[in-house]
Amino acid sequence: MTRLSYQDVERRLKHGGLRAGITRDDLATPALLLDLDAFEYNVAKMAAHCRDYGMALRPHAKTHKCPQIADKLIDAGASGICAAKVSEAEVFAGHGVHGILVTTPLVGRFRIERGIALASRSADTIFVVDDAGNLRDLNDAAAVAGIELNVAVELHVGRKAGIAPGEPALALAQMIDSLPHVKFAGLQAYAGHASHVNGYHARRQASELAMQPAIATKALLEKCGIDCPMLSGGSTGTYNIDCTFDGLTELQPGSYIFMDIDYSSIGGQNGPVFGDFRNALSVLCTVVSKPVRNMALLDAGYKGFSTDRPFVPAAKNDLGLTYEWAGDEHGRLYFSSEQVQTGDRIEFLVPHCDPTVNLYDRIYCCRGESLEDIWQISARGMCQ
Amino acid sequence: MTRLSYQDVERRLKHGGLRAGITRDDLATPALLLDLDAFEYNVAKMAAHCRDYGMALRPHAKTHKCPQIADKLIDAGASGICAAKVSEAEVFAGHGVHGILVTTPLVGRFRIERGIALASRSADTIFVVDDAGNLRDLNDAAAVAGIELNVAVELHVGRKAGIAPGEPALALAQMIDSLPHVKFAGLQAYAGHASHVNGYHARRQASELAMQPAIATKALLEKCGIDCPMLSGGSTGTYNIDCTFDGLTELQPGSYIFMDIDYSSIGGQNGPVFGDFRNALSVLCTVVSKPVRNMALLDAGYKGFSTDRPFVPAAKNDLGLTYEWAGDEHGRLYFSSEQVQTGDRIEFLVPHCDPTVNLYDRIYCCRGESLEDIWQISARGMCQ
Repeated sequence: MTRLSYQDVERRLKHGGLRAGITRDDLATPALLLDLDAFEYNVAKMAAHCRDYGMALRPHAKTHKCPQIADKLIDAGASGICAAKVSEAEVFAGHGVHGILVTTPLVGRFRIERGIALASRSADTIFVVDDAGNLRDLNDAAAVAGIELNVAVELHVGRKAGIAPGEPALALAQMIDSLPHVKFAGLQAYAGHASHVNGYHARRQASELAMQPAIATKALLEKCGIDCPMLSGGSTGTYNIDCTFDGLTELQPGSYIFMDIDYSSIGGQNGPVFGDFRNALSVLCTVVSKPVRNMALLDAGYKGFSTDRPFVPAAKNDLGLTYEWAGDEHGRLYFSSEQVQTGDRIEFLVPHCDPTVNLYDRIYCCRGESLEDIWQISARGMCQ
Repeated sequence: MTRLSYQDVERRLKHGGLRAGITRDDLATPALLLDLDAFEYNVAKMAAHCRDYGMALRPHAKTHKCPQIADKLIDAGASGICAAKVSEAEVFAGHGVHGILVTTPLVGRFRIERGIALASRSADTIFVVDDAGNLRDLNDAAAVAGIELNVAVELHVGRKAGIAPGEPALALAQMIDSLPHVKFAGLQAYAGHASHVNGYHARRQASELAMQPAIATKALLEKCGIDCPMLSGGSTGTYNIDCTFDGLTELQPGSYIFMDIDYSSIGGQNGPVFGDFRNALSVLCTVVSKPVRNMALLDAGYKGFSTDRPFVPAAKNDLGLTYEWAGDEHGRLYFSSEQVQTGDRIEFLVPHCDPTVNLYDRIYCCRGESLEDIWQISARGMCQ
């Protein structure tokens, strides 16, 4: 069979109807691949888990930055998505995604203005606040726009943003109740530090310790007559811990859809491996040079993989290959025999999915060897 | 003065004639900033250095991925640019940049096809080769296209790609000479490992050790009657070392135009700081939350800065602030007093410029507080 040319493949990739017969062998590398079987397994498993525990699920879109993935998650039962920044939320809202919770306060030049514009188009968007001055600014801007803004109080339960749980949070919630153009939407409490604690029991302890003040704050608000429809939190690492906390109403995990190397090592409920979800994301690379017998150069380095973890990329089918960073553009591959040749194509699991996805413009969705779809990472780079 | 709205600023940013009065205060954050005074100083200094030593200068565009910067470098005397990958080269050629040296061999699906298409449009493009089989493929493809391809032999002088210097390189150069559709353009020898060696004298030793076989290979080729018009190598860290090597014909440094934190620490010719070039690149951030007295959250984390170095971002005007990674979207800032408030805007030098630039779509060019231009990072993400 004649191999397709680059122009032919690009043309056929653009039109869904022409993709039949295109396989992963036809993709230029480095290419970001999604294993659809593993992805769909992960999506269904978390959705079923939340249904079983009566929790809402609002997966974090900072992981994938891809409207088609948001659609799949919502089709599977998610109530909406989380977006890290207002610029990220704008992209998803522009694609018709509803139920967006923007998880960073609207502080900084233009952020309130952009948030108000977003809420004017997507009325069910929720923003978080942890500061009385910022809340007044939000209320004033909503008044000018003639809208009512959904605002949740972010609680400081970890090492991120937020107001102190308890009385300070109550006062801010009461202030929301007293202002005419903001509406109290509930609480956000994200204990990200707990999600990577090694060992299930230690992780449970860390998450309980972090979330208990948030749960107590929800009870305090309700005791004071403030209805608290939402307490949003949780992560992939604690999804099977936080669901047992009475008071938490929704989970906002992100990484479970792809799973990266990091999470595998944090320990599961029944053993040393956290294997609840399957590795669905990989980067396909090509060996571009083999300068010596046991070392080869790959075509992906710092610009092809995230580098924020102490892990390096791992060959997907454990082949006795060791990856080592070789700068911006390349990886160095060590092996013990003649097993690797120039031109070989090797698939790597990524050290950390979220920042890796943010390096690519599209994700190639594969079912086995076949290419089934291409999704645009439309919110790539949207960190404002 | 009324502050401009987001829409107004975006509209005025799009049209050069409307930018008067726009300052860095009008930029949404995180924003990638270029200090034009420092950048122009760096560009002029390296150009003068190469002129003084009679060396050609072909700066590496993997650093900036920006055609406007390539234009500035060529205007200042560069003979062309290096591009790491064929996809990167395509972007620059499409913008009319000439004299491109593609520094990674054309190995992998579509790479030869794309290289041939590029050479058909930009006849002075040079490709590197380190493998006889790949060379035959290049010659065959050039024959079909009816062109002659400029090919340089890449030498293995460090820990990257390349054929062994000496006889193996000679044989490959002779093979190029013997094939009808490829033309021998010279040698590439990049000793990237030498560029970050600490201390000027140790660095000189490392670079001499690495480059000596390349220089000897050039002499061997010429002794055997093969004209070798180019020996390209060198980096920012060794720019003032390699220029003294008899035989090297051109430098291909990249980082000097921006300078990152890493290079400052490798030691200069006359002291512990390598201060030959000025830090020109920064990321402007906003404090989005101050949950406790001495810690604040910034709006840039793993997706706003490169993370491949052991350094963290450094506040540009040393303010006693300590940055700590706080995940994909945020940084944590520690300080000892009340000096930082929510909404503050703080500028950070980046740990490593190249992969940081690759996270952004545009670079805001500032002269003091004023915004003077906006350049598109058109080759961002081009790692194929």
